[in-house]
Amino acid sequence: MTQNIYDDEAFFDAYAQLPRSRHGLDAAPEWPTLRAMLPPLAGRRVLDLGCGYGWFARFAQAEGAASVLGLDVSRRMLARAREASEGLDITYEQADLEHATLAPASFDLAYSSLAFHYLVHLGPLLARVHAALAAGGSLVFSVEHPMVTAPRTPGWIAHPGGHQTWPVDAYLDEGPRETSWLRDGVIKQHRTVATYLRLLTQAGFTLARLEEWAPSEAQLVVHPEWSPGERERPAFLLIACTRDRE
Amino acid sequence: MTQNIYDDEAFFDAYAQLPRSRHGLDAAPEWPTLRAMLPPLAGRRVLDLGCGYGWFARFAQAEGAASVLGLDVSRRMLARAREASEGLDITYEQADLEHATLAPASFDLAYSSLAFHYLVHLGPLLARVHAALAAGGSLVFSVEHPMVTAPRTPGWIAHPGGHQTWPVDAYLDEGPRETSWLRDGVIKQHRTVATYLRLLTQAGFTLARLEEWAPSEAQLVVHPEWSPGERERPAFLLIACTRDRE
Repeated sequence: MTQNIYDDEAFFDAYAQLPRSRHGLDAAPEWPTLRAMLPPLAGRRVLDLGCGYGWFARFAQAEGAASVLGLDVSRRMLARAREASEGLDITYEQADLEHATLAPASFDLAYSSLAFHYLVHLGPLLARVHAALAAGGSLVFSVEHPMVTAPRTPGWIAHPGGHQTWPVDAYLDEGPRETSWLRDGVIKQHRTVATYLRLLTQAGFTLARLEEWAPSEAQLVVHPEWSPGERERPAFLLIACTRDRE
Repeated sequence: MTQNIYDDEAFFDAYAQLPRSRHGLDAAPEWPTLRAMLPPLAGRRVLDLGCGYGWFARFAQAEGAASVLGLDVSRRMLARAREASEGLDITYEQADLEHATLAPASFDLAYSSLAFHYLVHLGPLLARVHAALAAGGSLVFSVEHPMVTAPRTPGWIAHPGGHQTWPVDAYLDEGPRETSWLRDGVIKQHRTVATYLRLLTQAGFTLARLEEWAPSEAQLVVHPEWSPGERERPAFLLIACTRDRE
């Protein structure tokens, strides 16, 4: 069963301090790339899988989406999302993504930011998302890059001169990884790039675009506080795919 | 310009000693996976890009291909391929893949094994391959995995206890990598997984299957001489994609 770490009080409090929690999408460095992978949202029915504080739901609403449904397993996150969305036409529902029921052909865009790597069983969800999309609809999502989730002992290796390398191992051994991120014992699921693509293909999706995101050289100039080593390997895997018109 | 290392005498002689050079496809550990990604070959028109000794061309001929054309930049390789294919209905032509002219809609399968990572300009070739395939045709190819080509200093890092890690860096910095493989100064082109997929999409291909190949646990049992560390990161990237029927 997927861990619901976001309802852990210590984790939740630490998560609330992250720039992307406090300042939203524009504080997420991968957002410009992910945004460029989205279809136009005006008039579309939008589903956000793992909506968290609802930053993307509010963005979609501001862009003129016809409807926005945000799902999240964390009651704490949803309480904050609802509070921040008062007066806006957004629906939030508590749901474990591994078991959520989605009405067939009822969305034009399914979106998910950094949630799928928590799920033990991703394939069945992707099949339900495919069925929940209208023909021509899109799924756009991000996960931690498999190079990041793979290692038994993740962490940069510093070399003389300031250069750093990322030690990949266990890449082919998929499954849970226990990491210390904001607190000890956070469990993410490692999958290879090949497995993400295979699960999407098996669910019926056609790949439209895949990005291995790392900060651009321009972003590093604007954010000298980020490590220049962040360009040594990608941090996130971003994928856009479509449900073809039959 | 792409380096033609295979016409270098010392390199050619060392290459000739590799198991896959001496014993063909079955001595290439990734072959069973790549083979499973192929469409049926009987009656199909087959193009092999970087055909080397012609092992795959002869396999395709034995499988009942309607025609087989092997292209390679190396005159030495082609001489060996022709010698080994005497009496068989296979055509070999000397061609620099970056400039080869391919007749439109004249092949059902384009195949390439471990050749594309030598090419400086891959995008234009993929566009020509797409145009050279009949509707419904396939491109199936392998390259060194981008995790392997990325590092400035490739090589396993040994840790106490015998465990090893692969040091990834410079992953986002695409371009030439000079390595020592069979001899010094061999130049391969590093591209990210994302770039391979983007170039294919831009050329008009639809992704059918992608594999990040490492030896299976069963293969390691049969080949105790291989390093168990070979499962720590993938060695090859295998891709099958199609030219859709319009």
